Amino acid sequence: MTKPRVTLKDIAGRVGVHPSTVSRVLNPKTRGMVNPEIAATIAETADKMGYRPNPFAYSLRTRRSFIIGVMIPDIANPVFPPIIRGIERILEPHGYAVVLANTDNSSERERVSIERFVERQVDGLITATSLLSDDFLVDLGADVPVVFVNRRAETPGVPSVVVNDAAGIAAIIEHLVSLGHRRVAHVAGPQLMSTGKIRYETFVEECRKAGLATDATLIEFTDAFMEGEGRRAATALLKREKFTAIVAANDLLALGCYGALADAGLVCGRDVSVTGFNDMPFVDRLQPPLTTVHIPLNEMGEGAARLLLDQLMENGSSETTITLQPELVVRASTGPAPKVAKK
Amino acid sequence: MTKPRVTLKDIAGRVGVHPSTVSRVLNPKTRGMVNPEIAATIAETADKMGYRPNPFAYSLRTRRSFIIGVMIPDIANPVFPPIIRGIERILEPHGYAVVLANTDNSSERERVSIERFVERQVDGLITATSLLSDDFLVDLGADVPVVFVNRRAETPGVPSVVVNDAAGIAAIIEHLVSLGHRRVAHVAGPQLMSTGKIRYETFVEECRKAGLATDATLIEFTDAFMEGEGRRAATALLKREKFTAIVAANDLLALGCYGALADAGLVCGRDVSVTGFNDMPFVDRLQPPLTTVHIPLNEMGEGAARLLLDQLMENGSSETTITLQPELVVRASTGPAPKVAKK
Repeated sequence: MTKPRVTLKDIAGRVGVHPSTVSRVLNPKTRGMVNPEIAATIAETADKMGYRPNPFAYSLRTRRSFIIGVMIPDIANPVFPPIIRGIERILEPHGYAVVLANTDNSSERERVSIERFVERQVDGLITATSLLSDDFLVDLGADVPVVFVNRRAETPGVPSVVVNDAAGIAAIIEHLVSLGHRRVAHVAGPQLMSTGKIRYETFVEECRKAGLATDATLIEFTDAFMEGEGRRAATALLKREKFTAIVAANDLLALGCYGALADAGLVCGRDVSVTGFNDMPFVDRLQPPLTTVHIPLNEMGEGAARLLLDQLMENGSSETTITLQPELVVRASTGPAPKVAKK
Repeated sequence: MTKPRVTLKDIAGRVGVHPSTVSRVLNPKTRGMVNPEIAATIAETADKMGYRPNPFAYSLRTRRSFIIGVMIPDIANPVFPPIIRGIERILEPHGYAVVLANTDNSSERERVSIERFVERQVDGLITATSLLSDDFLVDLGADVPVVFVNRRAETPGVPSVVVNDAAGIAAIIEHLVSLGHRRVAHVAGPQLMSTGKIRYETFVEECRKAGLATDATLIEFTDAFMEGEGRRAATALLKREKFTAIVAANDLLALGCYGALADAGLVCGRDVSVTGFNDMPFVDRLQPPLTTVHIPLNEMGEGAARLLLDQLMENGSSETTITLQPELVVRASTGPAPKVAKK
């Protein structure tokens, strides 16, 4: 590594040709312009001398950075590492590196991250979050291919990988009904995010269809998919309503519900059942283990990376939305509805 | 974003000067060579036209990529996200982006990752893992500054941010002794990694000093800091030895011990106490909550990034090793030693 970089000029000097001839040989597109015997000698010499193409010169010529920007709310949320590993698994063999941006659910940070990505001339962008309107990203997408992961695009034609959220919520309601629950509360996610919105709308619809209580006061909205917000919302619900189960819009919100129940001296799974969404790592090790909806996080990342590659390679794939099927995982945080609903 | 990029030529045409004059003005180092009035007009025009420097041309000129490579075993291990956020928090304001490489504790993947980083001409490298010898990284370091995080360098002069592992293990042994434990087992980490080696050596030393049992059969080594290995090791220990507590070399290994105890029908914290190391997110929510050693993960990442910046900016800081102090966190996975050691 301490040796100085081998240049085209060095190789040209060794072989005794002009540097431009070396340049032609080392570019597969122009190699045919050079006498095959000379081309072979040059290629062999370059190899022996340990020549590596200069990535900056290559990028300047091809206008490709071989960098993909990936925008997520927070890498410390255990949902995202498996998605990122999935993305890398697909992109790496194609020579792409991933640069992450954590937005902390701030639209200002999203804007700054996107600007930085554009300055860096990323070849593509995968976003797991957007508080900004689609239009902003689609404008960007005119130059830079964009794929949404775990977020539904409002604008047709923007590729995305999503989970069938409605099916997941329907499975939860069916499970709770089978356990005898009749008054079920909902700690809803942010309504600016498609996952929060769809899960909330499906919750209302499925409760109605199953003949459960549909009081608006059984629903509390949160500003972010975070544990603290879940705790706040569940505490508010416990203060004003009677119910035997809480459907949280994701696992972190469910964790917050655990905290609120403990604060109120209630036993999760016995006094009040709690459900999550995502089946993020370690929720099977919580006390009690969390009943939740499993989504294939690795596959989600892989799918997003494939949709992006399709655009980068102009494969012209007609597939723009991949919908993955979730699966209910029943654990000890849900149990039979107690005879009298605890406050 | 859909507008074509503004070039030096565009600005030159607007102002009515030669493009090389624009180039001089936009480079702070050569701006003084241009008449101040003309320079001001050019700068203002560039600004109005929305000029952004071409990063590839800039990198070609400066030989800087403004990319830092960060090598970790696995982003899905909850220890690493907080370290990465710490790194980004410090590097981002300086214009550096982070490219991650997950090595899955494979020395082959480490080698490939480093080669890719070199090809990409990263400006620096932070590594949380190395199964490769220091020499390999130090050779690399001749061109590229390297900082170790949560890993002690064997070669003097290589900057690193570490935790005082010995103090952490000593605190655990003291805690267990105070609870009456006399036969304590150790699920040791990989001895090729400095954390595994130091924690093991300190365990042996502290047991000896405290007058605890020092049978070699109370120790089982693992190949990786992973839950599966912890489960295998604890199962082996339970088969051949009597003890009342297990000191696991990190939290993931401790999680594996939980599994082995459950398999054996033993209650963690009552029949056998278990301790971890790291205090990774969510271990306070396990059943039972894990007694462990808290290490400041965010600060660790921030420290590593600062040491790297020192090298990049040639600040010539004399500080090469930052040692952070750990803190014992007592939870329900440790309790009084039972009268009769369970098998």
